[in-house]
Amino acid sequence: MSPKPSELATLIAPVADGLKRMRETIAHELREESPAVREMVEHVGRFQGKQLRAALVLLSGEATSNTTDEHASIAAVVEMIHLATLVHDDVLDGAEVRRRVACVNHRWDNQTAVLLGDFLYARAFAVSTDLSSRLCSRVLAEATRRICVGEIEQAAGRYDFDAKQERYEWVAGAKTATLYAAACELGARYPGGRDEMGSRMRQFGWDLGLAFQIIDDCLDLTATQAEIGKSVGTDVEDGKVTLPVLWVYARASEAEKAAIRDAYTRPGLVDRVGELRRVCKLDAGVEYARRRAESLITSAIASVRELPESPARTSLENIAGFVLERSW
Amino acid sequence: MSPKPSELATLIAPVADGLKRMRETIAHELREESPAVREMVEHVGRFQGKQLRAALVLLSGEATSNTTDEHASIAAVVEMIHLATLVHDDVLDGAEVRRRVACVNHRWDNQTAVLLGDFLYARAFAVSTDLSSRLCSRVLAEATRRICVGEIEQAAGRYDFDAKQERYEWVAGAKTATLYAAACELGARYPGGRDEMGSRMRQFGWDLGLAFQIIDDCLDLTATQAEIGKSVGTDVEDGKVTLPVLWVYARASEAEKAAIRDAYTRPGLVDRVGELRRVCKLDAGVEYARRRAESLITSAIASVRELPESPARTSLENIAGFVLERSW
Repeated sequence: MSPKPSELATLIAPVADGLKRMRETIAHELREESPAVREMVEHVGRFQGKQLRAALVLLSGEATSNTTDEHASIAAVVEMIHLATLVHDDVLDGAEVRRRVACVNHRWDNQTAVLLGDFLYARAFAVSTDLSSRLCSRVLAEATRRICVGEIEQAAGRYDFDAKQERYEWVAGAKTATLYAAACELGARYPGGRDEMGSRMRQFGWDLGLAFQIIDDCLDLTATQAEIGKSVGTDVEDGKVTLPVLWVYARASEAEKAAIRDAYTRPGLVDRVGELRRVCKLDAGVEYARRRAESLITSAIASVRELPESPARTSLENIAGFVLERSW
Repeated sequence: MSPKPSELATLIAPVADGLKRMRETIAHELREESPAVREMVEHVGRFQGKQLRAALVLLSGEATSNTTDEHASIAAVVEMIHLATLVHDDVLDGAEVRRRVACVNHRWDNQTAVLLGDFLYARAFAVSTDLSSRLCSRVLAEATRRICVGEIEQAAGRYDFDAKQERYEWVAGAKTATLYAAACELGARYPGGRDEMGSRMRQFGWDLGLAFQIIDDCLDLTATQAEIGKSVGTDVEDGKVTLPVLWVYARASEAEKAAIRDAYTRPGLVDRVGELRRVCKLDAGVEYARRRAESLITSAIASVRELPESPARTSLENIAGFVLERSW
């Protein structure tokens, strides 16, 4: 049985107060006179799902005895940046449904989605600029750069069936693991001077985030929209050749390879994932990718197991396990 | 006769060295390993046109005896933010030509334009975070917020022919004058503590930027693509009711009003500006808007005329005049 979101709520209970302050900060910082902006911000507020990245800031702080009054604000900045990337992702993917709430670009248009994302970035950077240490601005400006570079490289590598796993992991890591790593690093290290602890928790976040992305890519091939609450099959539609497909493709006969490429590219094909499943051993690729995610999670758990025992450390370990089991 | 871009080069000669350092900073800060990003950055480099906002940072510093080693970096941050808004504007407007170089979203696609803009924003904030005073980050994060809110309000107000001039100026100011005002304020005030001088130069920048936008809106109705090097008639195409049209509409008969709305909205109409010109006294509206721009420029020049005489002050005055005469 897959864990339910309510179980995730239990996992993040040790930082429930901080998460509440984080949500209040976001609500406060996104308040605008403009009626158009207000309506959009309310709409986007409904996307706020797991708030996993914010929880990681707070849990990493708790687990490493590094909690400051500013951690809730850092968590807010991380969530706002995440929200901005989600809004811009919706432009990118043309995805029609996210979290069962109409996407910004579906309800309004691409223009508005771009502007709302820019607004969220601007507010995030403003809040981080007002913190007492610059570490937050530095780490998150660098993280944002890396996310963009990862996404651009991903776009440049569409329909590249011969990419190596290393390249896939570089892109998946850059676009997703970067923000997890930054969240954990900031939690453990802010306001500064705890470099070793920062590196350890950054590694934890990176492994966790990369595993998260790999599982996400598996779910896009295996889940239904009803199960995970967002469009599925979009990677194949967009020409993103993810780890399961790369693995199968590298082991396929020339005829199978041609059939895989055809499933991605044949004009007018409606159920590309179904076709892919018909022409190759897709499940074997998914199985391989899941094993890779498991090994990353094992490594993540090893990183935190050396910390002193605490409810926060237990939460981090359980979240790592949860990422593997999730079906959302 | 309209001034040529080469004359603008003469106007900004007093800060030529600073502008050179500004360009070097941008080139350095946008350097990336990623081949895809590198290609796009090179492409976007060709958009760099007037660099007027960067020049305003440096000239405002010189004219108020407030030049620091960091002014060239501030100018670079301002230009990068401007570049990011241009790239995202191209997504917004669907404009097909900018500065006679294919737009990012025409050569690549909307996805890539969004990501490249985000990358430019991220790099701008990273550079500003590394400056010795936070004033640059604060002023520019706030400016970016305001630009986004202005653009969102503009999008929300499309086809609103009954808008008041005040509303038009609020939107035009927010989306364009904000960055001019921030550039001039930072030049005069960075690293901080010179509040009165900052306010004076902020006002200069605001008046200049608003005049610039009004002239821009006039040129979109009167110029040819060959003259100004970017698509024209896009405002009417996009439902943006700019000052010249608002003025004419407010004074039109019911029949004329219907004809104006028809020129904006009739499906399949190719030359909407031509149709607009046929059905109303468009030139009278353009004339009114130009007079409004002139009065703003008069006020801008009055703001700087109280500064001590210097080549930089003369440049600021001449740039103000230049904005009025420009046909680019």
